[in-house]
Amino acid sequence: MSNKKAIVLLSGGLDSATVAAIAKAEGYDVYALSFSYGQRHSVELTAASRVKDQLGLIERRTANVDLRTFGGSALTDNIDVPKDRDEDTMDSDIPVTYVPARNTIFLSFALAYAEVIGCKDIWIGVNALDYSGYPDCRPEYIAAFQAMANLATKAGVTEDDKMSIRTPLLNLTKAEIIKAGIELGVDYSLTISCYDPDPSGAACGHCDSCYLRKKGFDEAGVVDPTRYRETGD
Amino acid sequence: MSNKKAIVLLSGGLDSATVAAIAKAEGYDVYALSFSYGQRHSVELTAASRVKDQLGLIERRTANVDLRTFGGSALTDNIDVPKDRDEDTMDSDIPVTYVPARNTIFLSFALAYAEVIGCKDIWIGVNALDYSGYPDCRPEYIAAFQAMANLATKAGVTEDDKMSIRTPLLNLTKAEIIKAGIELGVDYSLTISCYDPDPSGAACGHCDSCYLRKKGFDEAGVVDPTRYRETGD
Repeated sequence: MSNKKAIVLLSGGLDSATVAAIAKAEGYDVYALSFSYGQRHSVELTAASRVKDQLGLIERRTANVDLRTFGGSALTDNIDVPKDRDEDTMDSDIPVTYVPARNTIFLSFALAYAEVIGCKDIWIGVNALDYSGYPDCRPEYIAAFQAMANLATKAGVTEDDKMSIRTPLLNLTKAEIIKAGIELGVDYSLTISCYDPDPSGAACGHCDSCYLRKKGFDEAGVVDPTRYRETGD
Repeated sequence: MSNKKAIVLLSGGLDSATVAAIAKAEGYDVYALSFSYGQRHSVELTAASRVKDQLGLIERRTANVDLRTFGGSALTDNIDVPKDRDEDTMDSDIPVTYVPARNTIFLSFALAYAEVIGCKDIWIGVNALDYSGYPDCRPEYIAAFQAMANLATKAGVTEDDKMSIRTPLLNLTKAEIIKAGIELGVDYSLTISCYDPDPSGAACGHCDSCYLRKKGFDEAGVVDPTRYRETGD
């Protein structure tokens, strides 16, 4: 009998690699979906490709969605990525690295992919603890997307088994995510989390994403395998 | 004082042109959003451009979203567009011209656009009467998308005025839509509804969309301004 299918949104970062490993460990055939969306850190797509190979995923597709059509984010515009921010600020503000409606757009594409391959489970590495500043990482948002997805699709109209949006990292700290991934054999040296890496993929070490990742390895008591840029900044 | 902003999903067809005219008549500054999604009837984008000019809309952006990444529809794949179908079949089945998650993807892009320009009203020409076969044209789907949108965005987190998905055509027949549009000065000769037009934009006259459009003009008692192909089929 064939396995159940899972679509995993795979950015090439630490979180999504862990999600892919969790889905696989739960017995799913994993179909990875990445996005080329005009992100300045597009080198993460090569990381996604490495992760796909390391974890033995079924396939990986990259959807081209040019979010620069609208702009409005430091990740796609010529706005500086904030560096060395205060952690309290990270928690309370919606940062300029927020990309308008990004998770909604990404999950919508996953929904199309799911309908076409006959998959009911879409996995995404959102995290409510470490990224509380992003509205589309909150559990109530995910629940609302799932409800909408079941009305949007053929599945919702004609079948009993419903679409499910799976968020295994939702309430984990970064350290807990890292420990879970290591137990499942994820090689984090292959992943890139930095919002502003150099073309080789070396991390800046100072953006919010680098800060949270570093802190996660530290709190997990695991040696940080991240390759950082050797610059004076 | 500046007008309120509305984003209108403008395909270049009869319905979306009418929606743009209604939004304008209600005092909105209309920002049109079109999609290049690998549709075989991409000539509709030139129709959208003509409609934008005729109605005096503020701007029109075209987002490139290659839905052929997933396939699964006669509108994007090498599947024949059904011709001369029985009307009962149209009502009961989900047709092969259904594009998986298309409205969800389109509305998600509109949501990104809305956040960036500070707009709270997204207008879409879905219609529950004439297209009952598409799950993502049902009122319960639209309500669920709106609920999700308010949790997905900065607006939902930080402001009182919520995102609204406006569907003025939802319960109108095609004939009622046409009568409303003509009253508002829409020039339907500029629009293209056909799923399978020739490169010049001439309609096939036999697909579901042509059938419903023809019937609408007939029932409205209005001369059909559509340019049909002069072929033997």
